[in-house]
Amino acid sequence: MTVLTNSLTEVAQQTRQAAIQLAGASTETKNQALEAVAQALEAATPEILEANVQDCQQAKAAGIANALYARLKLDATKLKGAIAGVRSVATLEDPVGTVQLKRELDTDLVLSRVSCPLGVLGVIFEARPDAVMQIAALAMKSGNGVLLKGGQEALHSCQALVKAIHQGLSNTAVSPNVVALLTSREETLELLNLDQDVNLIIPRGSNDFVRFVQENTRIPVLGHAEGICHLYVDQAAKLDQAVEIAVDSKIQYPAACNAVETILVHDAIAPQYLPKLTAALQDNHVKVLGDAKTQAIVDVGPATETDWATEYGDLIVSIKVVASLSDAIAHINQYGSGHTDAIATEDDQAAAVFMNQVDAAGVFHNCSTRFADGFRYGFGAEVGISTQRMPPRGPVGLEGLVTYKYQLKGQGQIVATYAGSDARPFTHKDL
Amino acid sequence: MTVLTNSLTEVAQQTRQAAIQLAGASTETKNQALEAVAQALEAATPEILEANVQDCQQAKAAGIANALYARLKLDATKLKGAIAGVRSVATLEDPVGTVQLKRELDTDLVLSRVSCPLGVLGVIFEARPDAVMQIAALAMKSGNGVLLKGGQEALHSCQALVKAIHQGLSNTAVSPNVVALLTSREETLELLNLDQDVNLIIPRGSNDFVRFVQENTRIPVLGHAEGICHLYVDQAAKLDQAVEIAVDSKIQYPAACNAVETILVHDAIAPQYLPKLTAALQDNHVKVLGDAKTQAIVDVGPATETDWATEYGDLIVSIKVVASLSDAIAHINQYGSGHTDAIATEDDQAAAVFMNQVDAAGVFHNCSTRFADGFRYGFGAEVGISTQRMPPRGPVGLEGLVTYKYQLKGQGQIVATYAGSDARPFTHKDL
Repeated sequence: MTVLTNSLTEVAQQTRQAAIQLAGASTETKNQALEAVAQALEAATPEILEANVQDCQQAKAAGIANALYARLKLDATKLKGAIAGVRSVATLEDPVGTVQLKRELDTDLVLSRVSCPLGVLGVIFEARPDAVMQIAALAMKSGNGVLLKGGQEALHSCQALVKAIHQGLSNTAVSPNVVALLTSREETLELLNLDQDVNLIIPRGSNDFVRFVQENTRIPVLGHAEGICHLYVDQAAKLDQAVEIAVDSKIQYPAACNAVETILVHDAIAPQYLPKLTAALQDNHVKVLGDAKTQAIVDVGPATETDWATEYGDLIVSIKVVASLSDAIAHINQYGSGHTDAIATEDDQAAAVFMNQVDAAGVFHNCSTRFADGFRYGFGAEVGISTQRMPPRGPVGLEGLVTYKYQLKGQGQIVATYAGSDARPFTHKDL
Repeated sequence: MTVLTNSLTEVAQQTRQAAIQLAGASTETKNQALEAVAQALEAATPEILEANVQDCQQAKAAGIANALYARLKLDATKLKGAIAGVRSVATLEDPVGTVQLKRELDTDLVLSRVSCPLGVLGVIFEARPDAVMQIAALAMKSGNGVLLKGGQEALHSCQALVKAIHQGLSNTAVSPNVVALLTSREETLELLNLDQDVNLIIPRGSNDFVRFVQENTRIPVLGHAEGICHLYVDQAAKLDQAVEIAVDSKIQYPAACNAVETILVHDAIAPQYLPKLTAALQDNHVKVLGDAKTQAIVDVGPATETDWATEYGDLIVSIKVVASLSDAIAHINQYGSGHTDAIATEDDQAAAVFMNQVDAAGVFHNCSTRFADGFRYGFGAEVGISTQRMPPRGPVGLEGLVTYKYQLKGQGQIVATYAGSDARPFTHKDL
């Protein structure tokens, strides 16, 4: 592969050139390319599985952890699923070319704002070979080039996959150069410095890794480090429902970023609610920690200041008794990560204040925090979840991989006509 | 003012608290606050003008340049105009609370995406006291708190203005703490480090200053350094029209970021076009530089590699003869700053390729680059022009000061219901 012989900057520029062509490709062209990639992956299945066996053997010999091994392993079923995923991306709506605004500034002077690709994405992911296929498909559908850097353990698998993708694209109108694979750890750091040629970095991995990326690049980063989500159980909550929501938010998938870490309970209902809550959580093997007021009501371990700022990612939860809605909001805005926070209450006014004042990408009323997810939101594909303030925020679908440009079409108009004492007025008529 | 006694972090947190309240304010409440501010500014006019006289005298004694002095000077007419500006912001559409998406995920489980304020803005501007009023008004209307840092030369003016703004707000439902003034140079640097409390930095000043800010903060920056705009005159251009567009793009306001710096000319029409163009430009006192091919046709000075990357901001222009549309696009994508680039042509196919492949916030066909402006686009107020790839991009109105959050309202739904072998399907019905 050229990747191994060229400098990363050259690779990135090559990808950018290919992406400029792809930016103008029709939906049909892009979907044909995705189908060709799917077929090439099917044809290369034996090679890909063999490469993965090699990776798995090496990883086992190096003593890889079981969870990582499970992600690295690519069997025929998993590969088939990933190829189906490539085809499903073809069915998603094309995010490019949407006219977001169309306005006549004056006769025959028409402004349009049209969505367009970002350019080149840099995606850094762990040893999950299936991510190569998913990411390449999303990048192509959104008209972007992509530089992929997978975990070292998956090197042979990634190489075999990208080889098949290139093979598939070679017979289409889309240049194989839109997808490039980086293979060395040094290239990861170099990638973070390519401000000129890379327009968005998507890191997939541990919180520490995402934070490292955020702190070491000037390129916009799509992703999130912590997911410290809260459930506030208001004095006007239906207690049994609030138990169900709390349990689901914690145990349905405790390692997920949208799982709840701290439950805030209004002191007026704490004596009734906390025994029910802790019993239900403990029945589900959740370790419960609480502040002093919680401990005065139920028999749980102590929660300290550190707990409020901790994403357990595990069957552990901290509980704090609060005196009011505003105390709950203040706690969340201080310790939360802006991911997803929920209120359980039958008081619509309290819910409205909570949803207004809690500063998070997702503010939920009477439902589980676990709903914060691109698929559940109906986005078709999830590129990532962003906890940054600026858009795109929250679960991000394909629209997170595009931007827009203003197109202005005239017939020779100049600004001098619209300036000075005799200025011609603009019509500013939305079309 | 509290600003002088508290640490900047404390001020920022106070501003954030006030902004959280403001975020939920109705349009009416915000407009009433703007009117109260306008009235307070009117009432404080003598004090404000006196403070400005003091600033002007000190600046003159220190030998301030004429252009800067003109910006610093705030007479009764200019102040009146700025107060009218505050009132006109009240008439703009409220960017907060727009429902961007509303979708039923299942019965009684409804997702909405609603625009909301960013939080706290940090705005650093030169010695233009009128900016204080404009920025404070835009921040309030968009529901944001704002930390203002003006040039040292305008210190007394800014203090008098912010005092009046606080006075005006003190009788309204909006806390005076939504607007804070920073007064020392050290605070500018400190401001750039307030990732936790400031959500957007808007630098207004020289290209060097904007670049400094971009390179020295992790907070998102709204603005642009260079504006290197191009006009490409295609072989199918109407030559006289292309001369008019070129002249307007250069001379209508040469210091503006959307003025053209380089004109690319297709070689097929260069012999006819260049003499007309250079004559028209020289008639308007523009210094014309050209590459070797240009110099072979018209008598102009040499343009070197450096010229292609230079924003003159003055009555100077560089010309390059290119062999094709794709050479023109390649030149623009290499040397442009992604601001605004135009093509003059009667060939719609060429125009479409240009507008597709040129990577800029604005791509124009048969009109002056000088149209790239929030007011001309009909945005009412321009917060800034962004040359970054991610939205907001190009001229940014009030919508650049808001983000969005997802609100999910349920009746006790949990994710377990929608998972596993017996999963209930989502309805995903747009409402």
